[in-house]
Amino acid sequence: MARPVDKTAVPSVTVPRLTVYLRKLRELQSRGVERVSSKQLAEMIDLNAAQIRKDFSYFGEFGTRGVGYEVERLVDEIKRCLGLERTWNVIIVGAGSLGTALARYRGFTEQGFKLIAMFDTSPKKVGVGFGDGRTIRDAAELERFCRGETVDIAIVTVPAHAAQSIIDRLVGLEPEHRVGAILNFAPVKVFAPRDVVVRQVDFSSELMFLSFYLDREA
Amino acid sequence: MARPVDKTAVPSVTVPRLTVYLRKLRELQSRGVERVSSKQLAEMIDLNAAQIRKDFSYFGEFGTRGVGYEVERLVDEIKRCLGLERTWNVIIVGAGSLGTALARYRGFTEQGFKLIAMFDTSPKKVGVGFGDGRTIRDAAELERFCRGETVDIAIVTVPAHAAQSIIDRLVGLEPEHRVGAILNFAPVKVFAPRDVVVRQVDFSSELMFLSFYLDREA
Repeated sequence: MARPVDKTAVPSVTVPRLTVYLRKLRELQSRGVERVSSKQLAEMIDLNAAQIRKDFSYFGEFGTRGVGYEVERLVDEIKRCLGLERTWNVIIVGAGSLGTALARYRGFTEQGFKLIAMFDTSPKKVGVGFGDGRTIRDAAELERFCRGETVDIAIVTVPAHAAQSIIDRLVGLEPEHRVGAILNFAPVKVFAPRDVVVRQVDFSSELMFLSFYLDREA
Repeated sequence: MARPVDKTAVPSVTVPRLTVYLRKLRELQSRGVERVSSKQLAEMIDLNAAQIRKDFSYFGEFGTRGVGYEVERLVDEIKRCLGLERTWNVIIVGAGSLGTALARYRGFTEQGFKLIAMFDTSPKKVGVGFGDGRTIRDAAELERFCRGETVDIAIVTVPAHAAQSIIDRLVGLEPEHRVGAILNFAPVKVFAPRDVVVRQVDFSSELMFLSFYLDREA
């Protein structure tokens, strides 16, 4: 068995980069590439080679000069570090246009995330199919569902005013049933106990990132 | 007039933090808070106070010990730095569920982004309303539209296989008409000339970020 990666040594700012490396390395793997140097990777993903070497050193991986890194091994190490060597059960709460779009997002399954249920409060939506013969459940059943199934991650796509109360219900369950992580798309800051991981997606931030770099006449 | 911020001095990893500061500072402003210390801000957004002071120093802003920073002034500085003191014209290409969700996203207008058009190739969608009496346009008119209006940012929400050809059309226009920045939601790596800013949104990465921190029995 491979030695475990010390996750506490990996800074949180490094984690998004790991996902970028993983995507690129898998692409190389699918093209039959067996080895890659930090310099080659740096050119492919527009990042500094020294930074890449530093990031890979968290796995105890050191490329050999002139030979580079073993692609397959790096893929395995990064997957293990990101917790992707297993399947995570995901639910979506809020079956509006965004929730529906995410339910169709093919990338999730490819990465080991399994959408096991979708919830909404609207009687017009409850019972409607959302793929693979499954139907949208009534949000009133949220607690009962979480007690019967292991829910690892909840994606919250409800309106801003409803987000906190949904999250309170998800994290207010008994410790063995509560949701471990929340991906919140509602445009509002939400709170959860310290041991629940929360990530906020804010589309405005993405546009602000672009406007920072846009240099145009008004 | 305020002295201009030297954007080239601001590292790209700092930019996402600026959007977080801005959101929090605006919230404080709306609650009538006039001054805030780096320590208080650090607690509110779960970040290191020294990091916050360093980030604010890019604007030449130095808090006064015991008094802190002027909230209003910081908001103005960050807005100016992020290019948010003006309005940016945005189009969405791809009127599927994700494109529709983004068209309804209220955060955009609040931050100075103006959705001026939405495009799709499907005859079923072209002509359908998407808010404020506007209707979805035929993607065949993309070039003509961009020559008639200033399009600063294009949000691409087409299927993966169609993304690059749409982007080629948007950036292939005459320099004075081409789109300045692209926010790509299609789950595929896309390419554009160096002077066009491209940002890739990948929902799988968000889930991977969570699974990194999830520590659970399989």
